[in-house]
Amino acid sequence: MMNKIAVVMGSISDWPTMQLTTQLLEQFELDYEPKIISAHRMPEELKLFSESAKKNGYSVIIAGAGGAAHLPGMLAANSILPVIGVPIESRALKGMDSLLSIVQMPSGVPVATTAIGSAGAKNAALLAVEILAINDDSLSQKLVDFRKWQTEEAIKSADQLK
Amino acid sequence: MMNKIAVVMGSISDWPTMQLTTQLLEQFELDYEPKIISAHRMPEELKLFSESAKKNGYSVIIAGAGGAAHLPGMLAANSILPVIGVPIESRALKGMDSLLSIVQMPSGVPVATTAIGSAGAKNAALLAVEILAINDDSLSQKLVDFRKWQTEEAIKSADQLK
Amino acid sequence: MMNKIAVVMGSISDWPTMQLTTQLLEQFELDYEPKIISAHRMPEELKLFSESAKKNGYSVIIAGAGGAAHLPGMLAANSILPVIGVPIESRALKGMDSLLSIVQMPSGVPVATTAIGSAGAKNAALLAVEILAINDDSLSQKLVDFRKWQTEEAIKSADQLK
Amino acid sequence: MMNKIAVVMGSISDWPTMQLTTQLLEQFELDYEPKIISAHRMPEELKLFSESAKKNGYSVIIAGAGGAAHLPGMLAANSILPVIGVPIESRALKGMDSLLSIVQMPSGVPVATTAIGSAGAKNAALLAVEILAINDDSLSQKLVDFRKWQTEEAIKSADQLK
Amino acid sequence: MMNKIAVVMGSISDWPTMQLTTQLLEQFELDYEPKIISAHRMPEELKLFSESAKKNGYSVIIAGAGGAAHLPGMLAANSILPVIGVPIESRALKGMDSLLSIVQMPSGVPVATTAIGSAGAKNAALLAVEILAINDDSLSQKLVDFRKWQTEEAIKSADQLK
Amino acid sequence: MMNKIAVVMGSISDWPTMQLTTQLLEQFELDYEPKIISAHRMPEELKLFSESAKKNGYSVIIAGAGGAAHLPGMLAANSILPVIGVPIESRALKGMDSLLSIVQMPSGVPVATTAIGSAGAKNAALLAVEILAINDDSLSQKLVDFRKWQTEEAIKSADQLK
Amino acid sequence: MMNKIAVVMGSISDWPTMQLTTQLLEQFELDYEPKIISAHRMPEELKLFSESAKKNGYSVIIAGAGGAAHLPGMLAANSILPVIGVPIESRALKGMDSLLSIVQMPSGVPVATTAIGSAGAKNAALLAVEILAINDDSLSQKLVDFRKWQTEEAIKSADQLK
Amino acid sequence: MMNKIAVVMGSISDWPTMQLTTQLLEQFELDYEPKIISAHRMPEELKLFSESAKKNGYSVIIAGAGGAAHLPGMLAANSILPVIGVPIESRALKGMDSLLSIVQMPSGVPVATTAIGSAGAKNAALLAVEILAINDDSLSQKLVDFRKWQTEEAIKSADQLK
Repeated sequence: MMNKIAVVMGSISDWPTMQLTTQLLEQFELDYEPKIISAHRMPEELKLFSESAKKNGYSVIIAGAGGAAHLPGMLAANSILPVIGVPIESRALKGMDSLLSIVQMPSGVPVATTAIGSAGAKNAALLAVEILAINDDSLSQKLVDFRKWQTEEAIKSADQLK
Repeated sequence: MMNKIAVVMGSISDWPTMQLTTQLLEQFELDYEPKIISAHRMPEELKLFSESAKKNGYSVIIAGAGGAAHLPGMLAANSILPVIGVPIESRALKGMDSLLSIVQMPSGVPVATTAIGSAGAKNAALLAVEILAINDDSLSQKLVDFRKWQTEEAIKSADQLK
Repeated sequence: MMNKIAVVMGSISDWPTMQLTTQLLEQFELDYEPKIISAHRMPEELKLFSESAKKNGYSVIIAGAGGAAHLPGMLAANSILPVIGVPIESRALKGMDSLLSIVQMPSGVPVATTAIGSAGAKNAALLAVEILAINDDSLSQKLVDFRKWQTEEAIKSADQLK
Repeated sequence: MMNKIAVVMGSISDWPTMQLTTQLLEQFELDYEPKIISAHRMPEELKLFSESAKKNGYSVIIAGAGGAAHLPGMLAANSILPVIGVPIESRALKGMDSLLSIVQMPSGVPVATTAIGSAGAKNAALLAVEILAINDDSLSQKLVDFRKWQTEEAIKSADQLK
Repeated sequence: MMNKIAVVMGSISDWPTMQLTTQLLEQFELDYEPKIISAHRMPEELKLFSESAKKNGYSVIIAGAGGAAHLPGMLAANSILPVIGVPIESRALKGMDSLLSIVQMPSGVPVATTAIGSAGAKNAALLAVEILAINDDSLSQKLVDFRKWQTEEAIKSADQLK
Repeated sequence: MMNKIAVVMGSISDWPTMQLTTQLLEQFELDYEPKIISAHRMPEELKLFSESAKKNGYSVIIAGAGGAAHLPGMLAANSILPVIGVPIESRALKGMDSLLSIVQMPSGVPVATTAIGSAGAKNAALLAVEILAINDDSLSQKLVDFRKWQTEEAIKSADQLK
Repeated sequence: MMNKIAVVMGSISDWPTMQLTTQLLEQFELDYEPKIISAHRMPEELKLFSESAKKNGYSVIIAGAGGAAHLPGMLAANSILPVIGVPIESRALKGMDSLLSIVQMPSGVPVATTAIGSAGAKNAALLAVEILAINDDSLSQKLVDFRKWQTEEAIKSADQLK
Repeated sequence: MMNKIAVVMGSISDWPTMQLTTQLLEQFELDYEPKIISAHRMPEELKLFSESAKKNGYSVIIAGAGGAAHLPGMLAANSILPVIGVPIESRALKGMDSLLSIVQMPSGVPVATTAIGSAGAKNAALLAVEILAINDDSLSQKLVDFRKWQTEEAIKSADQLK
């Protein structure tokens, strides 16, 4: 079992956000592959990638997109792998368009949606870790440690309350 | 030149709305084909249809979809025909999700978006007529007559003001 | 490996929606447990349940809640299991409050959010199936069959276009 | 047949956005005319221009406007040419007012609405090209080439994923 | 001095709302004229009416419209009379589109906007009365009486608090 | 007849916006008085001012306020003068809260609402001018000239389209 | 110490909602007085009541209002008693206007805002109880019992999960 | 009676906002304790703190949180003390998510919500003061003085109207 994770984004301009995803995946020492697949400019590649993702050893697909964000939903349409959608903060509507375009999927094809922007990008990684940890005790332990660490960081931050 | 129009919808539940489109196209005696192509449940059919739509004699594609409405944008991704998107009124968010999912397309692949619901469905037909009328004087005349008729109807409706 | 799924809701009034989740889980012959745990009226039970969910054989938690919907996020705070959040359609704001309360989680504790209302309830079940299918070939096959069936249903529905 | 395109805007302050439209039209070597016609400050000019646009050799009207954006709809009211509306990003409401004022046209008079801001301005040009390409094989080929080019650019951008 | 008030609406479907305006005007014994002038279907009539409204003895124009509500703004563009805009409650977006299309006028051409729906229709009448009462002591007294009456009605309604 | 105009604002922080109102009133050589009356911090002053505004020679009240903007509505509650409300652009919600707090008045007490921010501040002045011009031919002529001037400015701005 | 609670509403039409407040106050055997005080139609009464509320033995003011809901804020402006605001669900905007008009108070004069509609009306009562219970052990115990009861009700409702 | 106030926040990044709360509490010479308790990263601490807050001498809890802001509601779930919620201005949605997550509490567990951002933080302190002043004449007098002072400041600010 490879448990490789695809980190797909609709445009190179999404990379600063989606890098927060890959950095966390690295921290958990997970195998991942960043990819640019524009739903609208690369529909052929979208189809090829998503139809064979499972066969090619991917377990989870993370997809970030903004505006009329069709990428996560179209990846989900072509694969039975869990697809995690990250709504990129858009310029005019601040990601509300991205969020609704990703989360309001019709019944039959789910997308696991996270928060708009950087919090969502980080949580997409953590959600992938949680999914893979269901059957992986060592990964599960890493998650427990991560949670413990972040709890301690939150507690320690109280020192800054003058 | 066939000037056939495709009237595509994501689900049979969109038919009551999209029938307003086809009724107007009939009124203008245009050749049209209604189709159900769910972007999420029929991605294969979406690709096949949209890639060959021009070759198959279509001039304009009208597409109605609701919620995370990816159908118009994905048809546009696979074709250089003008795609007109109709945001179907959704249950919870009343079509605001449909509207943003259709209209907020990234630069490179346009969708000509009309109003939410029945007004949008009717106007999608009229927009298709306007497009085809650019080079068709008889269709152009029909449009002029239609406009005249609707102006007269509006004027006559004033009789009902007591 | 038990792969039991918890289907938690904040109030009995959420049951008509969340039943759509359990019906789909049954269709996939998955082991599930419906529960009422109000984040605000049963915080003790929330803690007890979520802290021991993994130990008690649960693999995935699905949680539906409306309004200031804190249930999915608080379950996620107490467990490293993947938590899927379903925004229940609320009376005044039609689920927009539920959606934002569930999806806008801070980085560190993800909730996999689905659509508002019944589509989201069904997709929560399918997302759970996708997650469990990563390492379960027979479940994976059932998903493939389900997708095929729903594609065929969508295709057949075209018969109703007059 | 001239296929001239009018690029109308409500105010000189819309020019930085609408220039993205004219630049793309130039790239396709199309004949266009930029114009300032404020619906509210130049209603006389609006009427004169729109009533005679077809007669004066225009095939498509592109109109950008912000806030209570009445320009595209009023041009459409006076002409049977296809009118493409570009919602300019407004200061306070970020173009949500512009979008709703343009897209929510009543049945009878359509406006083909694109995205808020620069993506919409570029796509308005591409939509005009698509419309004119229906009966123009050489323009059609240019569009195919443009799509190919932008696909290649998207693919190449993946090099920047470190 | 005639102080005639025009009560214009975009469609006969706005009449049930705008009748609340005319009923109040009658209560104040003001001279008024209800009219249907669709901005999009009757642009010619709109121009003719608004350009000559002042000359024809009108002092104030009240205009109700829904969706992409261009009527009040376009009347204001063609006249220096005060124009009061009433956002009609629209089907999908509940009048939020009507409100923004009417109130977000660019600087230079004001529209005095009232509330969405029936409260706005009634208040449009009262605003017209307030405007005309500036120089009309008898009308002014009627307003004072009306206010007194409605205060008394509000006070009396407390009897229903069981 | 004095035709004095009160320009009231809820806080000194609204002055940069409301100064756009007073500058236009000066341009029309109208008599005006700027005032700070916070509905929440100066309710006594609000009552005193609004109850005696008519008696003190005011014809129109213009009021700018932001957030939970109660100033225009409370001035209107205490006076039968026309009250024009200007929604100040607020920090978090960009004036959407100001707009709804001002425009959504219950039937019985109208506020003539203009656009959010500087366009609304300018238009509040112009609306006051339009109101006073109903019975003032020389002011009426100034408005006609202003409109002509702004039309010419709009036309001239086309020179900047390269 | 009387601990009397005022339950004020802007209109008799708010009574069905605000009755949920008074019913809960009765359940806690608290002394309360329902009142109709329209901020816009009864400003005199508003002032009189709020200025003397403390003197007249009130400890907490609960105020429900809808639309441009100025009542809670204006009561707060005239009293140093804690004011709890209940946003009534309005017709067109479903209480979003009421909520923003009540909650977005400027710094200096707070309103303790609860949820839109019936949940908010009930919670206003409970919040008043919590406030009065700070220094009242017997009331405090009643709250503890109420919480226990509602927890048990929530637990028991699980029986209905078939 | 101690009347100690807890000022809790979900993250150290909320401190610049919540400091406005503590500064005002200091001005009123009230005893307060700032705390960081992340609902999602420190659920254990949340439970411990809130369950024993009353016992530990707290009278009122003020809680600031942003995004999916569960902190105020979860504190309220575990305590019968009045909980005041401050919606922190979030990056993408400007605090609309924070507001709805805090204010839309289900019936049974209230949160007294104030405005988004700094106005809300200051008003949370003032609301706490108002609550404690119900039975504290000297604190009550301080509030009266504070109100007087802020009224005078508002009046004096009029000097800046040139």
